[in-house]
Amino acid sequence: MITEKKPLILITNDDGVEAQGINCLIDSVRTLGEIVVMAPDGPRSGMSGSFTFTKPITCQLIKKETDLTVYSCSGTPVDCVKLAFHQILDRKPDILLSGINHGINSAVCVFYSATVGAMLEGTIIGIPSVAVSLCNNEAVADFSQAVIYARTVAETVLQEGLPKGVGLNLNIPDTPQVKGMKVCSQTSTKWIREIERHTDPQGNTEYWLTGEIHDNEPHNRQTDMWAFRNGYASLVPLKIDMTDYEFMKKIKNWEL
Amino acid sequence: MITEKKPLILITNDDGVEAQGINCLIDSVRTLGEIVVMAPDGPRSGMSGSFTFTKPITCQLIKKETDLTVYSCSGTPVDCVKLAFHQILDRKPDILLSGINHGINSAVCVFYSATVGAMLEGTIIGIPSVAVSLCNNEAVADFSQAVIYARTVAETVLQEGLPKGVGLNLNIPDTPQVKGMKVCSQTSTKWIREIERHTDPQGNTEYWLTGEIHDNEPHNRQTDMWAFRNGYASLVPLKIDMTDYEFMKKIKNWEL
Repeated sequence: MITEKKPLILITNDDGVEAQGINCLIDSVRTLGEIVVMAPDGPRSGMSGSFTFTKPITCQLIKKETDLTVYSCSGTPVDCVKLAFHQILDRKPDILLSGINHGINSAVCVFYSATVGAMLEGTIIGIPSVAVSLCNNEAVADFSQAVIYARTVAETVLQEGLPKGVGLNLNIPDTPQVKGMKVCSQTSTKWIREIERHTDPQGNTEYWLTGEIHDNEPHNRQTDMWAFRNGYASLVPLKIDMTDYEFMKKIKNWEL
Repeated sequence: MITEKKPLILITNDDGVEAQGINCLIDSVRTLGEIVVMAPDGPRSGMSGSFTFTKPITCQLIKKETDLTVYSCSGTPVDCVKLAFHQILDRKPDILLSGINHGINSAVCVFYSATVGAMLEGTIIGIPSVAVSLCNNEAVADFSQAVIYARTVAETVLQEGLPKGVGLNLNIPDTPQVKGMKVCSQTSTKWIREIERHTDPQGNTEYWLTGEIHDNEPHNRQTDMWAFRNGYASLVPLKIDMTDYEFMKKIKNWEL
């Protein structure tokens, strides 16, 4: 008799293992397979694809139930994916889910977000990987719509797979009734009012990074920012090969 | 009488303002324009596109000469670019140079490298941006070949510009006589032997990230890894729009 193994689902995030978002995600995909969570022991937002190499990292088993094993890790989200894949798991995961992030990660946020960083790491390793984010930065938020879309995408990826070198970036708007999901492109954006200059109590100048994102193409209905502004979840396929092949041809004519 | 302003050159790195690489880079482009350096006050390698938002950042003027102003900054390389652009400079730089990094940043290293992270930040802002790395991790290295290629690319970019949303990733092999420069694609790679498991003196398990890069396409003569293995400097144009437009069409047929 052949017993087929359940799909192995690796889960991580950047808000830490205790965050509401990751726990809602775990619950939502619990019945889809065997789940292993390797998530940071605290917040790691804005850490992009950072990894730790100047000191060792550690991990701790914090929960072991049927088909659910949870570890917390001292490292970054990228460290979590590397550690789980190379040291903890006995087989390659069928899918990596990163999130659900407390806060949106659309447009150029893919370059800052450690939720997306972990997803890209999974993609580099060769695991079909999905980053999931809700457009709400609060520690307690309504993930009821987000988990529906996260589970749908997870089920579809488990069934269809993903091409080599491509991961998915799913963002869900913070509305009680999401209108549906749109397959989108990464919006061209910039940041405005990005830095505030303050004076500390000793009279020294200090700077706080803040600001807001500015949509360079607000009328392009194909973008992820258009989607969430209009109440849709957005799903953007991201390539890890960032080469601009068109421009490559042009600069071959440069005298270098 | 019209006095034309000299090109404004913003320089940063991830090895810190005292590193040999950034100082060789400064010297090599010194005659090309007015230079402003905003670089971290210490090493920030492997920090990718990280930025600081949970605490303020500060900067300090450490050198002021004719056409050369140097600041050190408490933040990440991405913070350095944001701070210089939004608070320190009185005009938009004509070029951003990031490096010269002590260590190679080809292939998927673009996702971990803060040298490349700073270059991508410049590209997001809209500054023609170039990351420069030498394939030598030592604190003291021979940058004599690297500076020639860095200056050539800087001069060309100052003359030709770069398209919106595209930055350049230049890597120079560590050989006494580089054979020339090749325009390349980002090599498809993975990491092998990536994590070492150790036991600390108290008997606890700890993990060190290490390993080596494995070339998935060693016979592709177009890649940056082929170039440096064969003694050439590699120049890869990187797009900040990571959308996989081909795959986008396909997943529109998914039942989501």
